[in-house]
Amino acid sequence: MKKIATLMLLFVSGALAAQDIALPKPQTAGGKPLMEALNARRTGRSFSAQELTQKQLSDLLWAANGVNRPDGKRTAPSAGDSREIDIYVFLKTGVYFFDADAHKLIQKSKTDERKNVGMQPFVEIAPVVLVYVGNFDKIARFDKESQNFYSATDVGYVSQNVYLYAAAEGLTTVALGMIKKDELTALLKIKNGKPLLAQPVGYPGK
Amino acid sequence: MKKIATLMLLFVSGALAAQDIALPKPQTAGGKPLMEALNARRTGRSFSAQELTQKQLSDLLWAANGVNRPDGKRTAPSAGDSREIDIYVFLKTGVYFFDADAHKLIQKSKTDERKNVGMQPFVEIAPVVLVYVGNFDKIARFDKESQNFYSATDVGYVSQNVYLYAAAEGLTTVALGMIKKDELTALLKIKNGKPLLAQPVGYPGK
Repeated sequence: MKKIATLMLLFVSGALAAQDIALPKPQTAGGKPLMEALNARRTGRSFSAQELTQKQLSDLLWAANGVNRPDGKRTAPSAGDSREIDIYVFLKTGVYFFDADAHKLIQKSKTDERKNVGMQPFVEIAPVVLVYVGNFDKIARFDKESQNFYSATDVGYVSQNVYLYAAAEGLTTVALGMIKKDELTALLKIKNGKPLLAQPVGYPGK
Repeated sequence: MKKIATLMLLFVSGALAAQDIALPKPQTAGGKPLMEALNARRTGRSFSAQELTQKQLSDLLWAANGVNRPDGKRTAPSAGDSREIDIYVFLKTGVYFFDADAHKLIQKSKTDERKNVGMQPFVEIAPVVLVYVGNFDKIARFDKESQNFYSATDVGYVSQNVYLYAAAEGLTTVALGMIKKDELTALLKIKNGKPLLAQPVGYPGK
């Protein structure tokens, strides 16, 4: 009875307010030396369900495409500094938009949607699944061919940062091009843009 | 007279054999910590003509897309491990193909062709100009849209490695999408593929 009451309370409070996540200040020094991270860079497809810490999640997102200068510029370059790659973070507790400027996570869904990201079973096991969306409003000044080219190039920049952070931190990751684009477009309410890649991140599985 | 004789000798020997460059073994440890490299990652468009050392050139190319495992896998991922991004290196002494497996430079032209890469004057000043070419023979199994998407994504992975190496080494760099594609296609004799980006690398200018 007590358990049910607690669950009901959680459900009610959850229904009242989205649970944004304030990320701790990212670590912008230290970590494995760059050449060692490059040497350890690899793709892995076997994940443990072990959660990352809030610090790891914070550092991961800052490494991916965080602000590294007072004028808001990023760790990853983008065509004409358009900053058109949006990162959505799929966790057990829901789906979040990474607000790079405020360095926080804004909740977009309160349900675990990892099953709607990829075709591969391991995407539902990895504790953190990043979904990269090209926000075409931010590159509207380019022609269609350039929009497709630049958004693809720019997602590569972000994704490599994640590969290197994972390599430095003893985590495993894989970039996935075959993803559930229609489901993600609907779920994330994407109007002018498209899901480009997904990238699960976690500890290696057994 | 002696100077002219030496020049003639150089010219004759140059005409007889292409001058490939054996790169020193790359450094796969050390370097600035990853998080500091990410924090220092930025785009610069002012270059000094100061040459990089052979060691720097070797480390730069290994970081970009070198072999980091006995099975030939790379520091940068690629769609289905296609390894379809070819790197051409434009130096004052000529144009070279980066053979990642042998970790050496194979000479393709004996003339300084940096003027045929980009529209911007600084491309002729930077001592090293990388030109990334999507080799579509290696991704022939994908449909056209996927070939364009994956080659663009995969060049982003490589280019970010160069940005981070530059950041760690106190060098400056910029990825350029507006390049002389027709001239490069002819010069590099590209049949099934396309020049994607160019990236000059050098010490910052005054």
